[in-house]
Order: sequence, then C-alpha cells, then structure tokens
Amino acid sequence: MSATLYQHQREHIASLQRAYHECMAAHQLDSLAIYSGHARNHFADDHATSFQSYGHFIHWVGMSDIQHSWLVIQPNQRPQLYLYAPADFWHLPVQLPEEPWVAEFDIHLCSNKITPPLTGHAAIIGDVAALESAPQLAKSATLQPETLIRELDELRMVKTAYEIACLREANRLAIAGHQAANAAFIGASSELDIQLAYLGASRQRESEVPYQNIIGLNEHAGVLHYQRYDLMPPKHRYSLLVDAGRRFRGYCADITRTYAGPDAPSEFGDLVTAMHGLKDSLIAHIAPGVDFIALHEQMHQGLAEILISHGLYDGSAESAVETGVTRAFCPHGLGHSLGIQVHDVAGLRQPDGTLSPAPKSHPALRLTRTLQPGMVVTIEPGLYFIPMLLAPLRNKALPINWSLIDALTVCGGIRVEDNILVTDSGAQNLTQ
Amino acid sequence: MSATLYQHQREHIASLQRAYHECMAAHQLDSLAIYSGHARNHFADDHATSFQSYGHFIHWVGMSDIQHSWLVIQPNQRPQLYLYAPADFWHLPVQLPEEPWVAEFDIHLCSNKITPPLTGHAAIIGDVAALESAPQLAKSATLQPETLIRELDELRMVKTAYEIACLREANRLAIAGHQAANAAFIGASSELDIQLAYLGASRQRESEVPYQNIIGLNEHAGVLHYQRYDLMPPKHRYSLLVDAGRRFRGYCADITRTYAGPDAPSEFGDLVTAMHGLKDSLIAHIAPGVDFIALHEQMHQGLAEILISHGLYDGSAESAVETGVTRAFCPHGLGHSLGIQVHDVAGLRQPDGTLSPAPKSHPALRLTRTLQPGMVVTIEPGLYFIPMLLAPLRNKALPINWSLIDALTVCGGIRVEDNILVTDSGAQNLTQ
Repeated sequence: MSATLYQHQREHIASLQRAYHECMAAHQLDSLAIYSGHARNHFADDHATSFQSYGHFIHWVGMSDIQHSWLVIQPNQRPQLYLYAPADFWHLPVQLPEEPWVAEFDIHLCSNKITPPLTGHAAIIGDVAALESAPQLAKSATLQPETLIRELDELRMVKTAYEIACLREANRLAIAGHQAANAAFIGASSELDIQLAYLGASRQRESEVPYQNIIGLNEHAGVLHYQRYDLMPPKHRYSLLVDAGRRFRGYCADITRTYAGPDAPSEFGDLVTAMHGLKDSLIAHIAPGVDFIALHEQMHQGLAEILISHGLYDGSAESAVETGVTRAFCPHGLGHSLGIQVHDVAGLRQPDGTLSPAPKSHPALRLTRTLQPGMVVTIEPGLYFIPMLLAPLRNKALPINWSLIDALTVCGGIRVEDNILVTDSGAQNLTQ
Repeated sequence: MSATLYQHQREHIASLQRAYHECMAAHQLDSLAIYSGHARNHFADDHATSFQSYGHFIHWVGMSDIQHSWLVIQPNQRPQLYLYAPADFWHLPVQLPEEPWVAEFDIHLCSNKITPPLTGHAAIIGDVAALESAPQLAKSATLQPETLIRELDELRMVKTAYEIACLREANRLAIAGHQAANAAFIGASSELDIQLAYLGASRQRESEVPYQNIIGLNEHAGVLHYQRYDLMPPKHRYSLLVDAGRRFRGYCADITRTYAGPDAPSEFGDLVTAMHGLKDSLIAHIAPGVDFIALHEQMHQGLAEILISHGLYDGSAESAVETGVTRAFCPHGLGHSLGIQVHDVAGLRQPDGTLSPAPKSHPALRLTRTLQPGMVVTIEPGLYFIPMLLAPLRNKALPINWSLIDALTVCGGIRVEDNILVTDSGAQNLTQ
C-alpha cells in the first residue's frame, strides 16, 4: 500500500475521533463500546455461517472479519482495541497488519472473550443481544441507543479521502473480475464458471464478497437478485448480466455490466449501448445539491426515451412514465449510498437523522437525499423484460411493441452500474 | 439421476415414515412439524449470511437450501410439505425438481410465510425461536422436545441405501475437485486459486460446500482448521493439505489429501505414504462391533510406529503413546459420523440416546460408538508439526529427533481422510 493511503488513514481515524467525541459529548457519554460481532453456527450444527464485522467497527479498524473483539472510545483518550486472539492451534490466529494505523490504537490482545472496562455514563453498540454477558452489559450501559446510532450512521455518509481511496481500489479490483467474467462469457462458460473466473481475477473468495454476485445468463438477467449459478452453459447465449463487487479494507465496490451474446436479437446490443449512454448522462448531472429522487425520475424519463427510440413504445415519453410503463421495465431504484455496506446506512434519512422514506411511486429507492461532496453513490439504470411485471400492461390499450418485447425476453434484461463520488464541482466516476 | 436412486429414495421416505410414526406414537404425538429454518441478515445490514436447512428437514426432502418452509408428519397420513414459494421478481422462485420423491408428499405452495396447521398433541422442531410466531407456536405445541430430537438424531446414524448412494456420489464429485487441486498445486498456484480449481472441478460454489474447505500450503497444513486462502503462492512449495467436500442432495463428502511439494525434505513424502498406509490399515479393521474409541487408540499405536520407523522417535511405541508424544503430533480424533452434517449428529451418544462423551485423554474425538452396519464414518489420521503442541515436549528428556522435526516444520503436517461405510461383513471405502 502507498504511503499516501496510510497517511489518509491516520487522518481518517483522527477525524473519526473528533466526530465521535463531539457526538458523545452531546449525549453526555463517558465511554462508547463498539462490539465487532461474531459468527453464529448453522442451527443444530457446529459449522458457522458467513460473517462480516459490524459496520461501525470496520469504520475505525478497516478489517471486516474480526470477531469477539471490542473498540472502546473515550474522550481525551486513544481508542482502545480489545482484540480477541487466543492461543489456538486449530485456527490461524488473528494478526494485526504491520501498518501505521495500528499505532493510533492502544491494542489489548485478549486470550478470552472479554467484556471491556467501561467508565462513567456508557453506551454499547453492536450485536450483543445474544452474548451471555448481555444482561450484565445492559445494567452497566445503554445498549443500542437509537439516536446515537443514527448520528454515527450519518458520519458514514460523507467519505474521507481514505475512504474514497479504498472505494477506488475496490473498484479497480472488481473491474478486473468483470473483464474476466466477460471473457468467460465469450468462451461459452456456465454461470458457475463465470463466477469462478470473476473471483479469480478479482482475487477474492465467495465468502468475502460484499454481496452475493449476480451472474445471470439469458432470462436469468431479468431476475433482479438472481441467486443461483447454473452448472451447465445454456444452448443459446443471448445475454449475460454480472452484478459483482469487491471489498477493499472493508469498503465495497458494486458494479454491474450487461453483455449481448452471439444469439441475441440485434436490438438487444443496441439497447445495452443506449443504457450505458443513459447511465453516463445521469452521472453527468451529479453535483452537490442534486436531489437523488429527482435524478431517479430523470432515469425514468431517459428510459422512456430509449423505449421510444428503439421501437418498444410508440407514444410520448410523458405517457410512458405516467402510465407506469417505465416502472414495469425498471422496478428498482436508480442507486444507493455505497461504503462499508453495499446498501450503506442513512440513505433514507435527512442529515439531522429524520426519516425520509422512498416516494410511494418508487418504493424500492434506497437513497432519497440531496447529494453532498464526499458522498459515494451507485448509478444503476435498468431495463428488463420481466413477464410478471409486463403481464398487467398487456390488457391495457398501450402503444407497446409486444412482438419485439417477446423477442427480447430471452435476454432477461439490462443493468449497467458505476460507483460515483460527488465532488465539490460535480462528480468523479470511480469505475473506470 | 438413475431410476435406482429414485427407487431408493422412495424407500428411504417410506422407512422414515415408519420410524417417525413409531417414535411419535411412543411420545403420544398427533403431529410433528419440522421447520426448514431461514437465513438471517448480517447485523445492521440487509444482506443475508450463508444458510443451510435444518438437518431433519433435509433428511426427508433432500434439499439443503429451502427456507421459511414446513414439513408436517402425522400418523396414517402422507407427509405435508408447506413450501414457501412467493411470486417474486427479485429472486428465482423455489421450484421442486421433477423427481418421483415429490409424489410422496402433499405439496402446498405458500405465497406467505405461514404457520402450519397442527392437530392434537403436537411438537415442533427447528430454528423457530426467532420467528414472530414463536410465542403462539409455544402455546400450541411442545418446542424442541429433547428426547424426541435425540431419537430422530439416532435415525440418522444408520444410513439407508438411498443415503449411501448420495454419500457415494458426493465422494465422486469431491474426488474430481481433489484431483484439480493437486494439479493446481503442481502448477504452483496460490491457495485461493487451488480453492477455485477445486470448486470448478467439483461443480459447486463456496456457499454450498458442506464445510469451509481447508487449503493449506506449507506451514498452513499444520493449522488444523486453517481458515484463509492466501492470494499469492509462496516462494517454496513444501506441502499442500486439502480438506474439502461436496454436498449431493444434502449429503456430505469430507475428504483430505496431503501432497509433498518439490521443495519438501524427502522424509516428508515418505511420511505421507506411511500415513496413507496407516489410514488403509485402520479401514481394514472396520467392521460391525468395532469400538471407535479402540480404533482411535489403534491410530495412536500406528502413529507411534511411524514416528519410530521414520527416525522421529527413538523409543518404544508404548512409551510414545503413554507420554503423550503421539497426541502432540495428532491432537484431533480419528474421525466422526458423516451424513447430512459433516460432523453428523449422535456421534457421542449410545443407541438409547444417553451421552457417551469423548474420553478425557482424547477430548476432540467426535465419535465414541460401537460401529454398526450402515454407519458412515471418516477415517482421518493426522501427523503434524505444530510448534505450540511440540514446545512442551522439548523440555522433557524424550528420545525425539528435534533436528528432523525442525526440518519438517515448514511442511506443516499431514492428514489423509476417506469416508467409510460399515457393511455387514466389514467396510467399504466410498472414497475411491
């Protein structure tokens, strides 16, 4: 890693410290303990499910697989990291990397699962409900105080230089995976083998991905959160949709690409190109002060224009939006905040923490905020041929080109997605 | 799949039905509901952890990824399967395969998460504690009755012809993975790439493996449950240990192989060969009536002989066992029961369900039973150079060849493991 990243990380920790202390002062807190969390076993089994550390823990420590550990923040003190690291020949022991950030913490290596010492008026956040010590913890501290957590969530909305560098690197690694996935598709691979090619090129294992990669061939590209990987390649190759990411020091990339296959109707490839154009034009509109709901509505306007210019809809753009035609082709939101979690926290809040829900007409939208410099968001317009959503339109007298839609349904759909940093003057695309 | 397998599966279900009805009659139960379980989200996130259905649910249905579903068993009735299958364009809907076993059940497709109708004296087993309906369920039925569950566990100890066929097929698929892993090792791959080669050849994704594959190069082969995959190949290639499985219709293979690399001391390759010999000689002793604890002790005797014949220990075999030398080289048990779970249920019970714990001198042993025809067990002798375990021996005046051990420590250790069916007359190795 570069010296600049390390320098940025120290500044990141220092700025966290200032912000936490301010927040704790407002709540008259003398100490705040953040629990890393720990993996649970499958029910009635002795093997654990997959795990990721609690977001607010990662925010400080930058490691997403730490378990049974605690971070304690106190005013005018260095952060105290109680790291669970037992002498254990069954497992590789937890080791802190030899990196400068470690010197910003007082490190306590713990051979047992401890409860950290807390002084004065204390709060605890994290997944402590199932701990044996939970009743005792509840006596000594406030557990999961809602207002405080909302304020800490808000600290994650605007990214520091360190966080932006991490998101950029996560993107770089994920892009290598996307290139390998495309190559595997050209080589007529199955969904499983495309996934393995993606993992190999992005240098990660499935249990570390920030979200389960979506690798959909043909109709599967039209299942928004398609969750399987077929073992056999299909006879015909109409399309591939890959929605896949990468973590870097806890920070997530979330990139989608769609490719037309050799057996696709020619209109499909044109639509993929048009959707890239729509994505790029939406990105060009990103700037501080832009209302993300308005940008989402602009996506629907753009979708309507694409439906018209590609012969799928023979009416006005306004009518396509008003009658819900564009919503049937794209039922999800334009994007979401991105950070330590893929669907990062505080996307449906105002800066003061009050709820700002998705509009009723666009209930799947995960970000309703006004953009500010330092926010990182995904821009992911979609255009799908989902029989379940299109069926209700068939009985209405709408100027829809059903024969073309029927021909395109084998392709499933299109989604293209980049990760965008809001800058002082506009936007920067982290997915290059 | 072959017609024989399907026929065996119908017989398996019929025999389950008889056994469950008998068990329920003894408990005066009119209905028994088995909950599939469901995935939890990561804490404070909207993405789910990995999931596997409850073992007793898989025992009937043979699918290990079913969620929010119920199976209800009642005397003199066909089993009722309430399968959660909502109309959902976000996910690929659950679909039952077109296979004969489906006809053995009354299938109810549910678009909502239901509570199944229960009549009379009822019991419920499965991970229902976190369900919203849990308090209501507790009023209408006994939750998780311990004695009943132990009896159902016992039904899983002796396998039906169907289960044996599944375990055999799981082994066949896993062996293809092991061959690819070895080839990747010869090609100087990193641990991550060996893992991906394994997954590709065994046709599975990481989130479906029955347990996290152990892929340890060099010293990592000496970390018993080594849990990482390094991204870079090491400079020197001393050894590779691969402990990796495969599920087939819910049933698990669990196979380990160790390979000597081009940079290993020649003694290491000889020890690998000797450990295969020890494994095979232990397998040759398997037969109905054999006490697994005695077989485990026989492993220690065999280990002692290997230490002596390879110049690692210069004393009698008896002394190597009695002074704990062999335990320092192999701290784990000889094997465990294998089935729907890798460490299958009831391994530490007597046939009547009473606890039969591991002996104090061998606390990690997971199987303490007398072998019976139809049991399937792993046989996995190990020989490791684990500094943490060997250190206490260094201060004792023991005839141990420390210079040879120090030279071998870079190789980590050796484990070889096959899956063995106990037959009427002896044993059959499913790992061929």
